[in-house]
Amino acid sequence: MQKEISKLLDVRKSIRVLDATMRDGGLVNNFEFSDKFVKALYQANLAAGVDYMEFGYRADKTMFNESEFGKWKFASDDDIRAIVGDNDTPLKIAVMADVGRTNYEQDIRPKSESPVDLIRVATYLHQIPGAVTMIEDAKDKGYEVSVNIMAISTAQREDIEAALDIIGRSPVDVIYIVDSYGSVYPEQMARICDCYLEFGAKYGKEIGIHAHDNMRLAFANTIEAIGDGVNYADATYSGMGRGAGNCQMELLLGFLKNPKYKEYYAFEIAQKYMVPMRESGITWGYDLQYLATGILNQHPRTAIAFTGDKRKDYADFYKEMLLLD
Amino acid sequence: MQKEISKLLDVRKSIRVLDATMRDGGLVNNFEFSDKFVKALYQANLAAGVDYMEFGYRADKTMFNESEFGKWKFASDDDIRAIVGDNDTPLKIAVMADVGRTNYEQDIRPKSESPVDLIRVATYLHQIPGAVTMIEDAKDKGYEVSVNIMAISTAQREDIEAALDIIGRSPVDVIYIVDSYGSVYPEQMARICDCYLEFGAKYGKEIGIHAHDNMRLAFANTIEAIGDGVNYADATYSGMGRGAGNCQMELLLGFLKNPKYKEYYAFEIAQKYMVPMRESGITWGYDLQYLATGILNQHPRTAIAFTGDKRKDYADFYKEMLLLD
Repeated sequence: MQKEISKLLDVRKSIRVLDATMRDGGLVNNFEFSDKFVKALYQANLAAGVDYMEFGYRADKTMFNESEFGKWKFASDDDIRAIVGDNDTPLKIAVMADVGRTNYEQDIRPKSESPVDLIRVATYLHQIPGAVTMIEDAKDKGYEVSVNIMAISTAQREDIEAALDIIGRSPVDVIYIVDSYGSVYPEQMARICDCYLEFGAKYGKEIGIHAHDNMRLAFANTIEAIGDGVNYADATYSGMGRGAGNCQMELLLGFLKNPKYKEYYAFEIAQKYMVPMRESGITWGYDLQYLATGILNQHPRTAIAFTGDKRKDYADFYKEMLLLD
Repeated sequence: MQKEISKLLDVRKSIRVLDATMRDGGLVNNFEFSDKFVKALYQANLAAGVDYMEFGYRADKTMFNESEFGKWKFASDDDIRAIVGDNDTPLKIAVMADVGRTNYEQDIRPKSESPVDLIRVATYLHQIPGAVTMIEDAKDKGYEVSVNIMAISTAQREDIEAALDIIGRSPVDVIYIVDSYGSVYPEQMARICDCYLEFGAKYGKEIGIHAHDNMRLAFANTIEAIGDGVNYADATYSGMGRGAGNCQMELLLGFLKNPKYKEYYAFEIAQKYMVPMRESGITWGYDLQYLATGILNQHPRTAIAFTGDKRKDYADFYKEMLLLD
């Protein structure tokens, strides 16, 4: 179906934009954001009209050593409150909770005691029952709840449908399409959206999109999904995120025509913080090693290692990938 | 219309890929490519299965001072022959001829005397009769001929249709959609393709796509167009080209499933030449100043000046653009 350009030039009030800079971006700087940056990011999101700001993971402190990570790996209620106070603003606060890596019974307090609005449960296909338990827990505690089903580009359609049917019957509010490997073309994204939107309509759930830029398609896939009817879109400033990074907030806000979204403030935080962060040596973004794993529909961990080793022999890397058993 | 993924996984024999590195890329290094590089590029295109290689502009030496440009600004038959000999290969040779900047009567010799296969006429909408004259001249001399109608994102649809009707009645072989400002979203590209393909069907012309990356959509728009039925696609290695650059050959060859296209050789030339060229200080590619002009559907010349001045105040630049009279 051709996208209706008239709708894209108009305001679609059901759209929600989520800034995932501190969570996905935290994966490339070990979650070591300064308080000054986090406050500036919060102000930028408010000024830019962004709907949700994700502060990090709420990782289990018994599994991960606090001394080895910046505090946003654990994104405690107290640390968030130190930035946002009572957050008497339209900007909602989110944290991500990985299935199997979150002590959710203890670390997710009732909503009435927390500045957080949205719990984002992240799960692999083989963990769906664990995700449902966490969704029910967070919903019972009073939160909005979304779920990211990761790494679907290597899954069978029937398994995804089975997962969507289980998740659909849970009290989750939003189900995210996640292109973890950045290996999906827009033509394929359109089909995936059809599938998720069908389950969304059946069970009354919103659908979201979280894209990666391994094949330089994070933004293109995000607006493909929006054109297909997906309402929740993740982005990060300057695309900061693991490996090839994410859909860039600057691009997404420039695309959306609702005057509440003001891309100028995305340019501003990019100028003041994201560009200097990159120049300080923190590395993310599209490069040929990510294209290699993207083409091959592989987890980018080998490409991330290539980046970490400061290798530049892209063709040799691609050959290594092709010759792997 | 949703793209037919089954066709994208198969071989579409009507696809033709053109390497525009030396022509569009020449705009960022003043056409100063070493012979060693040009020979390596020619070999890479042969190995990668690319269909056409554009060697540069054939600019009018009475208008442009030869001492001020590398030789590929003029891309003479002799200079091309020094690289390709008789070019007894499947790779066809192209040069670009700008309307009003080409002494085509003298500088384009009969095909029987030239290693060139394809003359690419480049025109603005207000120069269409001049383009038709050049198309007829080149066709009479025995060449394949294509035409690039530039800067259409600021034109009225009726004017584009009038131009396509005139061009359609000329003997041109291929009509290119050119997103000069990189300001077209895939949803819009689909509509533009419909329009060009309709005239293409009426007059028996192939349609091509030449995209720019100002909004990081050069590749996405290229595969959108291919999915819509466009058969000729321009790309450059590592996207080398004016301003934000072009659709990257590495991405395009990775997308096409015809086994004649071998993206490994694109990775190889990127590793050996494009990455070192960039590290030597030659600048191109997506950056926020190009997004600013892309969002505003403006010629990127102000953004190119921003790049040349090594400015990093992206938000101030965007504000300047917004406040221009």
